[in-house]
Amino acid sequence: MSDIPGVVSENARIVDEALEERVPLGEMRIHDAAEHLLTAGGKRLRPALLMLVAGALGRPPEKTVEPALAVEITHSFTLIHDDVMDDDPLRRGEPSVHERWDVPTAILTGDYLYSKAFEVALETDASDETLRRVMETLARTCTLICEGQALDVELAESDDVTEDEYLRMVELKTGVLFAASTGIGALVSDAGIYDDAYSYGLKVGKAFQIYDDVLDLTAESDDLGKTRGSDLVEGKNTVVTLHARRNGVDPTLPKDASEDEIEAKVEEIRDAGSIDYARRRAEELVEEGKRDLDALPDGEARNALDEIADYLIQRTY
Amino acid sequence: MSDIPGVVSENARIVDEALEERVPLGEMRIHDAAEHLLTAGGKRLRPALLMLVAGALGRPPEKTVEPALAVEITHSFTLIHDDVMDDDPLRRGEPSVHERWDVPTAILTGDYLYSKAFEVALETDASDETLRRVMETLARTCTLICEGQALDVELAESDDVTEDEYLRMVELKTGVLFAASTGIGALVSDAGIYDDAYSYGLKVGKAFQIYDDVLDLTAESDDLGKTRGSDLVEGKNTVVTLHARRNGVDPTLPKDASEDEIEAKVEEIRDAGSIDYARRRAEELVEEGKRDLDALPDGEARNALDEIADYLIQRTY
Repeated sequence: MSDIPGVVSENARIVDEALEERVPLGEMRIHDAAEHLLTAGGKRLRPALLMLVAGALGRPPEKTVEPALAVEITHSFTLIHDDVMDDDPLRRGEPSVHERWDVPTAILTGDYLYSKAFEVALETDASDETLRRVMETLARTCTLICEGQALDVELAESDDVTEDEYLRMVELKTGVLFAASTGIGALVSDAGIYDDAYSYGLKVGKAFQIYDDVLDLTAESDDLGKTRGSDLVEGKNTVVTLHARRNGVDPTLPKDASEDEIEAKVEEIRDAGSIDYARRRAEELVEEGKRDLDALPDGEARNALDEIADYLIQRTY
Repeated sequence: MSDIPGVVSENARIVDEALEERVPLGEMRIHDAAEHLLTAGGKRLRPALLMLVAGALGRPPEKTVEPALAVEITHSFTLIHDDVMDDDPLRRGEPSVHERWDVPTAILTGDYLYSKAFEVALETDASDETLRRVMETLARTCTLICEGQALDVELAESDDVTEDEYLRMVELKTGVLFAASTGIGALVSDAGIYDDAYSYGLKVGKAFQIYDDVLDLTAESDDLGKTRGSDLVEGKNTVVTLHARRNGVDPTLPKDASEDEIEAKVEEIRDAGSIDYARRRAEELVEEGKRDLDALPDGEARNALDEIADYLIQRTY
């Protein structure tokens, strides 16, 4: 298991500082709620990826902090609204916005961060032409994320989901924002390798989510910030549970399953090879994503992107 | 009482056709819900104002339909989310999105339209530099609208609201999108009168909302699509009810007030001069807004903007 790469932490610090400079946002409840989420930590993976792609292409971090903030703020907005839709009481171990305040505040805080993300992206140090492409990428990405969340809701109502459908959902809900991050990193560097950068982000983003589903069954509850096996209790479709089903294992558990029952079910799923299968799918995506990096010049930043790709599927939480 | 100006209807037709060309948006529930709201009619005032300002400055409607759609789609997104927050069951006489579907669908449909608005705005036929200003205006406007809705929620919890606070809320919640519409109309014409155009929109937008509060007490329930006097039953602050309070009339009614009780209260408020007072405030704003039009060249489009300003505070619903 690997620690978060140092270069991610360094970039996270830049992002945290830039966020600190922008708060307080105002005196209203939505400002408090927005700050609560923005400054509550998080790995800042998406901005790190954006800054590293740009860095590999010769654009220093201080020139790319605005678009990096924009993708992080976009991510924050989706978390707040997703928590309302899924009625999740916790986020990063803290009460989610609708729990700590209420549903209207959570809807409105998400909406507020949504436009803030666009406002911050518009501060990008870039030519008007490049900025147009940055904004097109960001807007298109938000549309796709919404379609991903919508697909997630619709698939949750179906008892006949294929792995391809699930992976399409993951691509939209998670992959495209990673892809936008790396794609925008290329755009702001005017290096003309947008497609490769986007593809790298899309693949490692999908791998990240698949591995998240693995962690739900393998990580310590303390690290997860929720009970291990929650996906089984909630009857969620994942690459793991879909594989289990295909191999004759019912991966679901009653809502009131005991810890022992959960452990036994995890073992059953593990024995069916489903956890290894999902891990392998994530590894394949990471390998493919790393090949996209061939478009980038050799150097420290590119090595870091390699390292992050590996980290995404080796982390312990 | 005046009918909707013909020029608004003409522009509404252009907007409706452009929307028709863009549907179906997709096969998911959020696509259905988005189309439901977008094609359910509405006066299309904001796009009409945008197209008329641009038209007065020599930019024909077919060149400005994308930004016009963008402000209308932005308006639609705010309606969907506001209806969830206020738990309003009806919108334009039809079940609101969260009533017809559910709250998650309404949140997600609003989010989807939010980015769609930005995507459509990015299709604007304009130089990259102008587009940057259009996007800055749109993003900043969305932030302000969220702050306006937040202020609305916070003021509703207070029993000591001043008219200035209320008008600030109206400016943010309603005024700024009218202002963005007329401001963007100027931007896309590259005519350099953004400030005047913005100011006109801001003032007539505020007047529009103040007059809406007058209509709540004076229009026919059938025209309103809701019961006359609903603001009194809901205990809403408006320019009317704040004036009534200042003049010793309690403008509130119990939730189960009968039609007769509502009529009696409306009379009491009318006798206190509160309805005339609000009407006068709206008229003043319209007169001020019309003076901003001096920045525009004489002609049919400018006359129409004059006429629309008057219509906004003379309409019957």
